Amino acid sequence: MKESIGKVPGLAVILVGQRRDSLTYVRNKIKACEEAGIKSVVAEFPDSCAEEDIMTSLSKFNEDPSVHGILVQLPLPEHLDEEKILNLVSLEKDVDGFHPINMGNLSMRGREPLFVPCTPKGCLELLLRSGVEIVGKKAVVIGRSNIVGLPIALLLQRHHATVTIVHACTKNPERITCEADIVVTAAGVPSLIRSSWLKPGAVVIDVGTCPVEDPSAEYGYRLVGDVCYEEALSIASAVTPVPGGVGPMTIAMLLCNTLDSAKRLYGFT
Amino acid sequence: MKESIGKVPGLAVILVGQRRDSLTYVRNKIKACEEAGIKSVVAEFPDSCAEEDIMTSLSKFNEDPSVHGILVQLPLPEHLDEEKILNLVSLEKDVDGFHPINMGNLSMRGREPLFVPCTPKGCLELLLRSGVEIVGKKAVVIGRSNIVGLPIALLLQRHHATVTIVHACTKNPERITCEADIVVTAAGVPSLIRSSWLKPGAVVIDVGTCPVEDPSAEYGYRLVGDVCYEEALSIASAVTPVPGGVGPMTIAMLLCNTLDSAKRLYGFT
Repeated sequence: MKESIGKVPGLAVILVGQRRDSLTYVRNKIKACEEAGIKSVVAEFPDSCAEEDIMTSLSKFNEDPSVHGILVQLPLPEHLDEEKILNLVSLEKDVDGFHPINMGNLSMRGREPLFVPCTPKGCLELLLRSGVEIVGKKAVVIGRSNIVGLPIALLLQRHHATVTIVHACTKNPERITCEADIVVTAAGVPSLIRSSWLKPGAVVIDVGTCPVEDPSAEYGYRLVGDVCYEEALSIASAVTPVPGGVGPMTIAMLLCNTLDSAKRLYGFT
Repeated sequence: MKESIGKVPGLAVILVGQRRDSLTYVRNKIKACEEAGIKSVVAEFPDSCAEEDIMTSLSKFNEDPSVHGILVQLPLPEHLDEEKILNLVSLEKDVDGFHPINMGNLSMRGREPLFVPCTPKGCLELLLRSGVEIVGKKAVVIGRSNIVGLPIALLLQRHHATVTIVHACTKNPERITCEADIVVTAAGVPSLIRSSWLKPGAVVIDVGTCPVEDPSAEYGYRLVGDVCYEEALSIASAVTPVPGGVGPMTIAMLLCNTLDSAKRLYGFT
Protein backbone atom coordinates (compact mmCIF):
# COMPACT_ATOMS: atom_id res chain seq x y z
CA MET A 1 0.00 0.00 0.00
CA LYS A 2 2.87 2.32 0.87
CA GLU A 3 4.50 1.60 -2.49
CA SER A 4 1.30 1.81 -4.51
CA ILE A 5 -0.39 4.87 -3.09
CA GLY A 6 2.24 6.34 -0.77
CA LYS A 7 0.04 5.91 2.31
CA VAL A 8 0.36 3.78 5.43
CA PRO A 9 -2.39 2.70 7.83
CA GLY A 10 -2.64 4.71 11.04
CA LEU A 11 -3.79 3.59 14.49
CA ALA A 12 -4.66 5.97 17.35
CA VAL A 13 -4.80 4.66 20.90
CA ILE A 14 -6.44 6.41 23.84
CA LEU A 15 -4.93 5.35 27.13
CA VAL A 16 -6.31 6.60 30.44
CA GLY A 17 -4.52 5.99 33.71
CA GLN A 18 -1.67 3.73 34.68
CA ARG A 19 -3.18 0.23 34.99
CA ARG A 20 -0.22 -1.97 34.41
CA ASP A 21 -2.07 -4.52 32.31
CA SER A 22 -3.35 -1.71 30.08
CA LEU A 23 0.16 -0.27 29.82
CA THR A 24 1.49 -3.67 28.77
CA TYR A 25 -1.26 -4.18 26.21
CA VAL A 26 -0.77 -0.74 24.69
CA ARG A 27 3.02 -1.14 24.63
CA ASN A 28 2.65 -4.45 22.79
CA LYS A 29 0.18 -2.99 20.31
CA ILE A 30 2.42 -0.04 19.48
CA LYS A 31 5.43 -2.31 19.08
CA ALA A 32 3.47 -4.55 16.71
CA CYS A 33 2.40 -1.51 14.68
CA GLU A 34 6.03 -0.43 14.29
CA GLU A 35 7.03 -3.89 13.14
CA ALA A 36 4.19 -4.01 10.63
CA GLY A 37 4.74 -0.51 9.21
CA ILE A 38 1.57 0.94 10.72
CA LYS A 39 1.84 4.50 11.99
CA SER A 40 0.65 4.75 15.58
CA VAL A 41 -0.08 7.53 18.02
CA VAL A 42 -0.99 7.24 21.70
CA ALA A 43 -2.99 9.92 23.49
CA GLU A 44 -2.31 9.46 27.19
CA PHE A 45 -4.53 10.89 29.92
CA PRO A 46 -4.16 10.86 33.70
CA ASP A 47 -6.55 8.75 35.78
CA SER A 48 -8.32 11.91 36.92
CA CYS A 49 -8.85 13.41 33.47
CA ALA A 50 -12.13 15.03 32.41
CA GLU A 51 -14.44 13.16 30.05
CA GLU A 52 -14.42 16.18 27.77
CA ASP A 53 -10.68 15.94 27.18
CA ILE A 54 -11.09 12.38 25.94
CA MET A 55 -14.06 13.30 23.79
CA THR A 56 -12.09 16.15 22.20
CA SER A 57 -9.15 13.88 21.47
CA LEU A 58 -11.48 11.25 20.04
CA SER A 59 -13.18 13.78 17.76
CA LYS A 60 -9.82 14.87 16.40
CA PHE A 61 -8.90 11.26 15.60
CA ASN A 62 -12.31 10.75 13.99
CA GLU A 63 -11.58 13.62 11.61
CA ASP A 64 -7.89 12.91 11.01
CA PRO A 65 -7.61 11.27 7.56
CA SER A 66 -4.27 9.67 8.50
CA VAL A 67 -5.94 7.73 11.34
CA HIS A 68 -7.84 4.63 10.19
CA GLY A 69 -8.29 2.84 13.47
CA ILE A 70 -9.14 4.21 16.90
CA LEU A 71 -8.79 2.12 20.01
CA VAL A 72 -9.89 3.15 23.49
CA GLN A 73 -7.97 0.91 25.89
CA LEU A 74 -10.45 -0.60 28.37
CA PRO A 75 -11.30 -0.62 31.18
CA LEU A 76 -11.66 3.11 31.72
CA PRO A 77 -11.59 4.63 35.22
CA GLU A 78 -14.99 4.44 36.98
CA HIS A 79 -15.82 8.15 36.65
CA LEU A 80 -15.82 8.04 32.85
CA ASP A 81 -18.89 7.05 30.83
CA GLU A 82 -17.57 4.15 28.77
CA GLU A 83 -20.74 3.90 26.69
CA LYS A 84 -20.68 7.58 25.74
CA ILE A 85 -16.99 7.44 24.84
CA LEU A 86 -17.18 4.24 22.78
CA ASN A 87 -20.27 5.48 20.93
CA LEU A 88 -18.30 8.51 19.76
CA VAL A 89 -15.72 6.39 17.93
CA SER A 90 -16.42 6.73 14.22
CA LEU A 91 -18.02 3.52 12.98
CA GLU A 92 -15.55 3.43 10.09
CA LYS A 93 -12.57 3.55 12.48
CA ASP A 94 -13.93 1.27 15.22
CA VAL A 95 -11.18 -1.36 14.84
CA ASP A 96 -12.07 -2.83 18.23
CA GLY A 97 -15.61 -3.48 16.96
CA PHE A 98 -17.23 -2.31 20.21
CA HIS A 99 -19.64 0.22 18.70
CA PRO A 100 -23.23 -1.00 19.24
CA ILE A 101 -23.88 -0.97 15.49
CA ASN A 102 -20.93 -3.31 14.98
CA MET A 103 -22.15 -5.53 17.83
CA GLY A 104 -25.70 -5.48 16.46
CA ASN A 105 -24.51 -6.46 13.01
CA LEU A 106 -22.29 -9.16 14.51
CA SER A 107 -25.27 -10.63 16.32
CA MET A 108 -27.73 -10.51 13.42
CA ARG A 109 -27.82 -13.15 10.71
CA GLY A 110 -27.24 -11.88 7.20
CA ARG A 111 -25.54 -8.72 8.46
CA GLU A 112 -21.83 -8.01 8.31
CA PRO A 113 -20.14 -5.84 10.94
CA LEU A 114 -17.48 -3.46 9.60
CA PHE A 115 -15.11 -4.85 12.24
CA VAL A 116 -15.12 -8.02 14.32
CA PRO A 117 -13.63 -7.44 17.82
CA CYS A 118 -9.96 -8.43 17.84
CA THR A 119 -9.84 -11.08 20.56
CA PRO A 120 -12.89 -13.01 19.30
CA LYS A 121 -11.57 -12.74 15.75
CA GLY A 122 -8.21 -14.08 16.95
CA CYS A 123 -9.88 -17.04 18.67
CA LEU A 124 -11.81 -17.90 15.54
CA GLU A 125 -8.68 -17.61 13.43
CA LEU A 126 -6.92 -20.06 15.76
CA LEU A 127 -9.75 -22.55 15.35
CA LEU A 128 -9.97 -22.16 11.58
CA ARG A 129 -6.21 -22.32 10.98
CA SER A 130 -5.96 -25.40 13.20
CA GLY A 131 -8.63 -27.12 11.14
CA VAL A 132 -11.06 -27.42 14.05
CA GLU A 133 -14.55 -28.17 12.81
CA ILE A 134 -17.08 -25.67 14.20
CA VAL A 135 -20.36 -26.36 12.37
CA GLY A 136 -22.75 -28.30 14.61
CA LYS A 137 -20.21 -28.60 17.44
CA LYS A 138 -21.10 -27.83 21.04
CA ALA A 139 -19.25 -24.73 22.17
CA VAL A 140 -19.19 -23.32 25.68
CA VAL A 141 -18.04 -19.76 26.25
CA ILE A 142 -17.19 -18.98 29.86
CA GLY A 143 -17.78 -15.32 30.64
CA ARG A 144 -20.18 -12.86 29.03
CA SER A 145 -18.25 -9.60 28.87
CA ASN A 146 -19.03 -7.18 26.06
CA ILE A 147 -15.46 -7.28 24.84
CA VAL A 148 -14.73 -11.00 24.89
CA GLY A 149 -17.37 -13.54 25.99
CA LEU A 150 -20.37 -12.08 24.19
CA PRO A 151 -18.73 -11.41 20.79
CA ILE A 152 -16.97 -14.81 20.85
CA ALA A 153 -20.32 -16.50 21.43
CA LEU A 154 -21.91 -14.50 18.62
CA LEU A 155 -19.04 -15.32 16.29
CA LEU A 156 -19.11 -19.05 17.04
CA GLN A 157 -22.83 -19.01 16.44
CA ARG A 158 -22.30 -17.30 13.09
CA HIS A 159 -20.11 -20.29 12.28
CA HIS A 160 -22.98 -22.60 13.19
CA ALA A 161 -21.76 -23.98 16.51
CA THR A 162 -24.36 -24.72 19.20
CA VAL A 163 -23.30 -22.17 21.77
CA THR A 164 -23.92 -21.96 25.51
CA ILE A 165 -22.65 -19.02 27.56
CA VAL A 166 -21.65 -19.94 31.09
CA HIS A 167 -21.42 -17.07 33.58
CA ALA A 168 -21.36 -16.20 37.26
CA CYS A 169 -25.03 -17.18 37.76
CA THR A 170 -24.72 -20.54 35.99
CA LYS A 171 -25.42 -23.56 38.15
CA ASN A 172 -22.93 -26.41 37.79
CA PRO A 173 -20.74 -24.80 35.10
CA GLU A 174 -18.40 -27.78 35.26
CA ARG A 175 -21.09 -30.19 34.09
CA ILE A 176 -22.10 -27.94 31.21
CA THR A 177 -18.52 -27.26 30.14
CA CYS A 178 -17.50 -30.90 30.13
CA GLU A 179 -19.98 -31.62 27.34
CA ALA A 180 -18.40 -29.09 25.01
CA ASP A 181 -16.30 -29.86 21.93
CA ILE A 182 -14.93 -26.31 22.00
CA VAL A 183 -14.33 -24.36 25.22
CA VAL A 184 -13.44 -20.67 25.14
CA THR A 185 -12.81 -19.32 28.59
CA ALA A 186 -12.63 -15.64 29.45
CA ALA A 187 -13.44 -15.66 33.14
CA GLY A 188 -10.23 -14.12 34.48
CA VAL A 189 -10.12 -16.72 37.27
CA PRO A 190 -6.72 -18.44 37.46
CA SER A 191 -6.85 -22.25 37.32
CA LEU A 192 -10.66 -22.34 37.08
CA ILE A 193 -10.65 -25.01 34.37
CA ARG A 194 -9.38 -28.34 35.69
CA SER A 195 -9.31 -31.58 33.74
CA SER A 196 -12.68 -32.56 35.24
CA TRP A 197 -14.23 -29.63 33.33
CA LEU A 198 -13.18 -30.98 29.96
CA LYS A 199 -14.46 -33.61 27.59
CA PRO A 200 -11.72 -35.86 26.20
CA GLY A 201 -10.53 -34.39 22.91
CA ALA A 202 -12.02 -30.94 23.51
CA VAL A 203 -10.34 -27.90 22.01
CA VAL A 204 -9.62 -25.27 24.68
CA ILE A 205 -8.95 -21.59 24.06
CA ASP A 206 -7.81 -19.69 27.12
CA VAL A 207 -8.57 -15.96 26.95
CA GLY A 208 -8.17 -15.48 30.69
CA THR A 209 -5.37 -13.15 31.72
CA CYS A 210 -4.87 -12.42 35.35
CA PRO A 211 -1.73 -10.60 36.51
CA VAL A 212 0.06 -12.46 39.29
CA GLU A 213 3.00 -10.99 41.23
CA ASP A 214 6.31 -12.45 40.10
CA PRO A 215 9.46 -10.55 41.08
CA SER A 216 11.48 -12.60 38.59
CA ALA A 217 9.38 -11.40 35.64
CA GLU A 218 10.42 -8.40 33.54
CA TYR A 219 7.69 -6.06 34.84
CA GLY A 220 7.28 -7.65 38.29
CA TYR A 221 4.27 -9.76 37.37
CA ARG A 222 3.20 -12.40 34.89
CA LEU A 223 -0.13 -13.20 33.28
CA VAL A 224 -1.88 -16.47 34.01
CA GLY A 225 -4.90 -17.93 32.23
CA ASP A 226 -8.15 -19.58 33.36
CA VAL A 227 -6.95 -23.07 32.48
CA CYS A 228 -4.73 -25.48 34.42
CA TYR A 229 -2.58 -25.91 31.35
CA GLU A 230 -0.81 -29.13 32.30
CA GLU A 231 -4.03 -30.81 33.41
CA ALA A 232 -5.87 -29.68 30.30
CA LEU A 233 -3.11 -30.98 28.04
CA SER A 234 -3.69 -34.48 29.39
CA ILE A 235 -7.32 -34.58 28.26
CA ALA A 236 -7.90 -31.94 25.58
CA SER A 237 -6.84 -32.30 21.96
CA ALA A 238 -5.51 -28.73 21.89
CA VAL A 239 -5.02 -25.97 24.46
CA THR A 240 -3.77 -22.43 23.94
CA PRO A 241 -1.14 -21.27 26.43
CA VAL A 242 -1.11 -18.03 28.43
CA PRO A 243 0.88 -16.02 27.57
CA GLY A 244 1.57 -16.68 23.92
CA GLY A 245 -1.80 -18.03 22.83
CA VAL A 246 -4.67 -15.64 22.23
CA GLY A 247 -2.72 -12.47 23.15
CA PRO A 248 -0.54 -12.33 20.03
CA MET A 249 -3.58 -13.20 17.91
CA THR A 250 -5.50 -10.26 19.37
CA ILE A 251 -2.71 -7.94 18.35
CA ALA A 252 -2.44 -9.50 14.90
CA MET A 253 -6.19 -8.99 14.38
CA LEU A 254 -5.90 -5.36 15.49
CA LEU A 255 -3.29 -4.79 12.79
CA CYS A 256 -5.47 -6.66 10.33
CA ASN A 257 -8.54 -4.54 11.19
CA THR A 258 -6.49 -1.34 10.93
CA LEU A 259 -5.12 -2.35 7.54
CA ASP A 260 -8.61 -3.30 6.32
CA SER A 261 -9.91 0.05 7.51
CA ALA A 262 -7.16 1.98 5.74
CA LYS A 263 -7.82 0.05 2.53
CA ARG A 264 -11.52 0.78 2.80
CA LEU A 265 -11.02 4.47 3.56
CA TYR A 266 -8.50 4.90 0.72
CA GLY A 267 -10.56 2.74 -1.61
CA PHE A 268 -7.47 0.56 -2.07
CA THR A 269 -8.06 -3.07 -2.97
CA MET B 1 -52.03 11.20 27.88
CA LYS B 2 -54.90 12.27 25.66
CA GLU B 3 -56.54 14.06 28.59
CA SER B 4 -53.33 15.62 29.91
CA ILE B 5 -51.64 16.84 26.75
CA GLY B 6 -54.26 16.27 24.08
CA LYS B 7 -52.07 13.86 22.15
CA VAL B 8 -52.39 10.16 21.37
CA PRO B 9 -49.66 7.73 20.37
CA GLY B 10 -49.42 6.95 16.65
CA LEU B 11 -48.26 3.77 14.93
CA ALA B 12 -47.39 3.51 11.24
CA VAL B 13 -47.25 0.11 9.56
CA ILE B 14 -45.61 -0.64 6.24
CA LEU B 15 -47.13 -3.69 4.59
CA VAL B 16 -45.75 -5.06 1.33
CA GLY B 17 -47.55 -7.75 -0.62
CA GLN B 18 -50.39 -10.06 0.25
CA ARG B 19 -48.89 -12.80 2.45
CA ARG B 20 -51.86 -14.01 4.37
CA ASP B 21 -49.99 -14.39 7.66
CA SER B 22 -48.72 -10.82 7.32
CA LEU B 23 -52.23 -9.59 6.53
CA THR B 24 -53.54 -11.34 9.65
CA TYR B 25 -50.80 -9.94 11.85
CA VAL B 26 -51.29 -6.40 10.57
CA ARG B 27 -55.07 -6.66 10.90
CA ASN B 28 -54.70 -7.78 14.50
CA LYS B 29 -52.23 -5.02 15.29
CA ILE B 30 -54.47 -2.31 13.85
CA LYS B 31 -57.48 -3.67 15.72
CA ALA B 32 -55.53 -3.65 18.96
CA CYS B 33 -54.45 -0.05 18.33
CA GLU B 34 -58.07 1.00 17.86
CA GLU B 35 -59.07 -0.71 21.09
CA ALA B 36 -56.23 0.95 22.99
CA GLY B 37 -56.78 4.45 21.61
CA ILE B 38 -53.61 4.45 19.51
CA LYS B 39 -53.87 6.15 16.13
CA SER B 40 -52.71 3.86 13.36
CA VAL B 41 -51.97 4.18 9.68
CA VAL B 42 -51.06 1.44 7.21
CA ALA B 43 -49.06 2.14 4.06
CA GLU B 44 -49.75 -0.75 1.70
CA PHE B 45 -47.54 -1.59 -1.25
CA PRO B 46 -47.90 -4.23 -3.96
CA ASP B 47 -45.51 -7.19 -4.02
CA SER B 48 -43.76 -5.70 -7.02
CA CYS B 49 -43.21 -2.21 -5.57
CA ALA B 50 -39.94 -0.33 -5.90
CA GLU B 51 -37.62 -0.04 -2.92
CA GLU B 52 -37.63 3.71 -3.36
CA ASP B 53 -41.38 3.93 -2.76
CA ILE B 54 -40.97 2.22 0.60
CA MET B 55 -37.99 4.37 1.51
CA THR B 56 -39.96 7.52 0.69
CA SER B 57 -42.91 6.39 2.78
CA LEU B 58 -40.56 5.48 5.65
CA SER B 59 -38.86 8.86 5.53
CA LYS B 60 -42.23 10.59 5.78
CA PHE B 61 -43.15 8.55 8.84
CA ASN B 62 -39.73 9.28 10.36
CA GLU B 63 -40.47 12.99 10.09
CA ASP B 64 -44.15 12.91 11.02
CA PRO B 65 -44.44 14.11 14.64
CA SER B 66 -47.77 12.29 15.08
CA VAL B 67 -46.09 8.94 14.36
CA HIS B 68 -44.21 7.47 17.34
CA GLY B 69 -43.75 3.92 16.20
CA ILE B 70 -42.91 2.54 12.76
CA LEU B 71 -43.26 -1.10 11.95
CA VAL B 72 -42.16 -2.78 8.74
CA GLN B 73 -44.08 -6.05 8.55
CA LEU B 74 -41.62 -8.85 7.80
CA PRO B 75 -40.77 -10.80 5.77
CA LEU B 76 -40.40 -8.47 2.81
CA PRO B 77 -40.46 -9.79 -0.77
CA GLU B 78 -37.08 -11.14 -1.91
CA HIS B 79 -36.24 -8.24 -4.24
CA LEU B 80 -36.25 -5.68 -1.42
CA ASP B 81 -33.17 -5.02 0.73
CA GLU B 82 -34.49 -5.70 4.23
CA GLU B 83 -31.31 -4.44 5.90
CA LYS B 84 -31.36 -1.13 4.04
CA ILE B 85 -35.05 -0.61 4.78
CA LEU B 86 -34.87 -1.50 8.48
CA ASN B 87 -31.78 0.67 8.97
CA LEU B 88 -33.73 3.68 7.72
CA VAL B 89 -36.33 3.42 10.51
CA SER B 90 -35.61 6.22 12.96
CA LEU B 91 -34.02 4.76 16.07
CA GLU B 92 -36.50 6.69 18.23
CA LYS B 93 -39.47 5.12 16.41
CA ASP B 94 -38.11 1.59 16.01
CA VAL B 95 -40.86 -0.06 18.11
CA ASP B 96 -39.97 -3.46 16.67
CA GLY B 97 -36.44 -3.05 18.03
CA PHE B 98 -34.82 -4.45 14.88
CA HIS B 99 -32.40 -1.58 14.21
CA PRO B 100 -28.81 -2.84 14.67
CA ILE B 101 -28.16 -0.23 17.36
CA ASN B 102 -31.11 -1.55 19.34
CA MET B 103 -29.90 -5.13 18.82
CA GLY B 104 -26.35 -4.17 19.77
CA ASN B 105 -27.53 -2.48 22.94
CA LEU B 106 -29.75 -5.46 23.74
CA SER B 107 -26.77 -7.78 23.43
CA MET B 108 -24.32 -5.67 25.44
CA ARG B 109 -24.22 -5.72 29.23
CA GLY B 110 -24.80 -2.38 30.89
CA ARG B 111 -26.51 -0.98 27.78
CA GLU B 112 -30.21 -0.34 27.41
CA PRO B 113 -31.92 -0.60 24.01
CA LEU B 114 -34.57 2.05 23.34
CA PHE B 115 -36.93 -0.78 22.39
CA VAL B 116 -36.92 -4.51 23.08
CA PRO B 117 -38.42 -6.50 20.15
CA CYS B 118 -42.08 -7.24 20.83
CA THR B 119 -42.21 -11.04 20.70
CA PRO B 120 -39.15 -11.56 22.94
CA LYS B 121 -40.48 -8.90 25.31
CA GLY B 122 -43.82 -10.70 25.38
CA CYS B 123 -42.16 -14.04 26.18
CA LEU B 124 -40.23 -12.48 29.03
CA GLU B 125 -43.36 -10.81 30.37
CA LEU B 126 -45.13 -14.20 30.38
CA LEU B 127 -42.28 -15.72 32.39
CA LEU B 128 -42.06 -12.83 34.85
CA ARG B 129 -45.82 -12.53 35.39
CA SER B 130 -46.08 -16.28 35.93
CA GLY B 131 -43.40 -16.10 38.60
CA VAL B 132 -40.96 -18.32 36.70
CA GLU B 133 -37.48 -18.00 38.11
CA ILE B 134 -34.96 -17.17 35.38
CA VAL B 135 -31.68 -16.41 37.18
CA GLY B 136 -29.30 -19.36 36.90
CA LYS B 137 -31.83 -21.53 35.06
CA LYS B 138 -30.95 -23.46 31.93
CA ALA B 139 -32.79 -22.00 28.98
CA VAL B 140 -32.85 -23.41 25.48
CA VAL B 141 -34.00 -21.24 22.60
CA ILE B 142 -34.86 -23.17 19.45
CA GLY B 143 -34.27 -21.07 16.35
CA ARG B 144 -31.89 -18.18 15.81
CA SER B 145 -33.80 -15.72 13.66
CA ASN B 146 -33.02 -12.02 14.01
CA ILE B 147 -36.59 -11.25 14.98
CA VAL B 148 -37.31 -13.98 17.51
CA GLY B 149 -34.68 -16.56 18.47
CA LEU B 150 -31.68 -14.27 18.77
CA PRO B 151 -33.31 -11.44 20.76
CA ILE B 152 -35.07 -13.93 23.07
CA ALA B 153 -31.72 -15.55 23.81
CA LEU B 154 -30.13 -12.16 24.46
CA LEU B 155 -33.00 -11.14 26.72
CA LEU B 156 -32.94 -14.36 28.75
CA GLN B 157 -29.22 -13.91 29.14
CA ARG B 158 -29.74 -10.35 30.38
CA HIS B 159 -31.93 -11.95 33.03
CA HIS B 160 -29.05 -14.25 33.98
CA ALA B 161 -30.27 -17.54 32.54
CA THR B 162 -27.69 -19.94 31.11
CA VAL B 163 -28.74 -19.88 27.49
CA THR B 164 -28.13 -22.31 24.64
CA ILE B 165 -29.39 -21.61 21.14
CA VAL B 166 -30.40 -24.72 19.21
CA HIS B 167 -30.63 -24.38 15.43
CA ALA B 168 -30.69 -26.29 12.18
CA CYS B 169 -27.01 -27.33 12.50
CA THR B 170 -27.33 -28.54 16.11
CA LYS B 171 -26.64 -32.22 16.63
CA ASN B 172 -29.12 -34.01 18.86
CA PRO B 173 -31.30 -31.00 19.70
CA GLU B 174 -33.65 -33.27 21.64
CA ARG B 175 -30.96 -34.18 24.16
CA ILE B 176 -29.95 -30.57 24.68
CA THR B 177 -33.51 -29.34 24.97
CA CYS B 178 -34.55 -31.98 27.49
CA GLU B 179 -32.07 -30.56 30.01
CA ALA B 180 -33.65 -27.09 29.95
CA ASP B 181 -35.75 -25.54 32.69
CA ILE B 182 -37.11 -23.03 30.19
CA VAL B 183 -37.71 -23.84 26.53
CA VAL B 184 -38.61 -21.14 24.03
CA THR B 185 -39.23 -22.53 20.60
CA ALA B 186 -39.41 -20.49 17.43
CA ALA B 187 -38.61 -23.06 14.77
CA GLY B 188 -41.82 -22.87 12.75
CA VAL B 189 -41.93 -26.67 12.54
CA PRO B 190 -45.34 -28.06 13.59
CA SER B 191 -45.21 -30.69 16.34
CA LEU B 192 -41.39 -30.61 16.57
CA ILE B 193 -41.39 -30.64 20.37
CA ARG B 194 -42.66 -33.96 21.72
CA SER B 195 -42.74 -34.95 25.38
CA SER B 196 -39.36 -36.70 24.97
CA TRP B 197 -37.80 -33.26 24.31
CA LEU B 198 -38.86 -31.91 27.68
CA LYS B 199 -37.57 -32.16 31.22
CA PRO B 200 -40.32 -32.82 33.77
CA GLY B 201 -41.49 -29.50 35.13
CA ALA B 202 -40.01 -27.39 32.32
CA VAL B 203 -41.70 -24.18 31.29
CA VAL B 204 -42.42 -24.12 27.56
CA ILE B 205 -43.09 -21.05 25.45
CA ASP B 206 -44.23 -21.78 21.94
CA VAL B 207 -43.48 -18.99 19.48
CA GLY B 208 -43.89 -21.20 16.44
CA THR B 209 -46.70 -20.26 14.08
CA CYS B 210 -47.21 -22.25 10.95
CA PRO B 211 -50.35 -21.74 8.86
CA VAL B 212 -52.15 -25.00 8.15
CA GLU B 213 -55.10 -25.30 5.74
CA ASP B 214 -58.40 -25.55 7.57
CA PRO B 215 -61.58 -24.85 5.57
CA SER B 216 -63.57 -24.59 8.80
CA ALA B 217 -61.44 -21.67 10.06
CA GLU B 218 -62.49 -18.06 9.49
CA TYR B 219 -59.77 -17.30 6.93
CA GLY B 220 -59.36 -20.82 5.55
CA TYR B 221 -56.37 -21.72 7.67
CA ARG B 222 -55.28 -21.92 11.28
CA LEU B 223 -51.94 -21.37 13.00
CA VAL B 224 -50.17 -24.24 14.73
CA GLY B 225 -47.16 -24.07 17.01
CA ASP B 226 -43.90 -26.03 17.35
CA VAL B 227 -45.11 -27.94 20.40
CA CYS B 228 -47.31 -31.03 20.68
CA TYR B 229 -49.46 -29.22 23.18
CA GLU B 230 -51.25 -32.21 24.74
CA GLU B 231 -48.02 -34.17 25.08
CA ALA B 232 -46.16 -31.22 26.55
CA LEU B 233 -48.94 -30.57 29.08
CA SER B 234 -48.36 -34.03 30.52
CA ILE B 235 -44.74 -33.33 31.40
CA ALA B 236 -44.14 -29.55 31.52
CA SER B 237 -45.20 -27.33 34.39
CA ALA B 238 -46.53 -24.71 31.96
CA VAL B 239 -47.02 -24.49 28.19
CA THR B 240 -48.27 -21.57 26.12
CA PRO B 241 -50.92 -22.45 23.53
CA VAL B 242 -50.94 -21.50 19.84
CA PRO B 243 -52.93 -19.46 19.06
CA GLY B 244 -53.63 -17.42 22.17
CA GLY B 245 -50.22 -17.63 23.88
CA VAL B 246 -47.38 -15.48 22.65
CA GLY B 247 -49.33 -13.84 19.80
CA PRO B 248 -51.51 -11.57 21.95
CA MET B 249 -48.46 -10.73 24.09
CA THR B 250 -46.55 -9.62 21.00
CA ILE B 251 -49.33 -7.24 20.13
CA ALA B 252 -49.60 -5.98 23.70
CA MET B 253 -45.85 -5.24 23.72
CA LEU B 254 -46.13 -3.40 20.41
CA LEU B 255 -48.76 -1.13 21.95
CA CYS B 256 -46.57 -0.77 25.02
CA ASN B 257 -43.50 0.16 22.94
CA THR B 258 -45.55 2.65 20.92
CA LEU B 259 -46.92 4.27 24.07
CA ASP B 260 -43.43 4.43 25.60
CA SER B 261 -42.13 6.02 22.43
CA ALA B 262 -44.89 8.65 22.38
CA LYS B 263 -44.22 9.48 26.02
CA ARG B 264 -40.51 9.82 25.32
CA LEU B 265 -41.02 11.96 22.22
CA TYR B 266 -43.54 14.23 23.98
CA GLY B 267 -41.46 14.29 27.16
CA PHE B 268 -44.55 13.02 29.01
CA THR B 269 -43.95 11.00 32.16
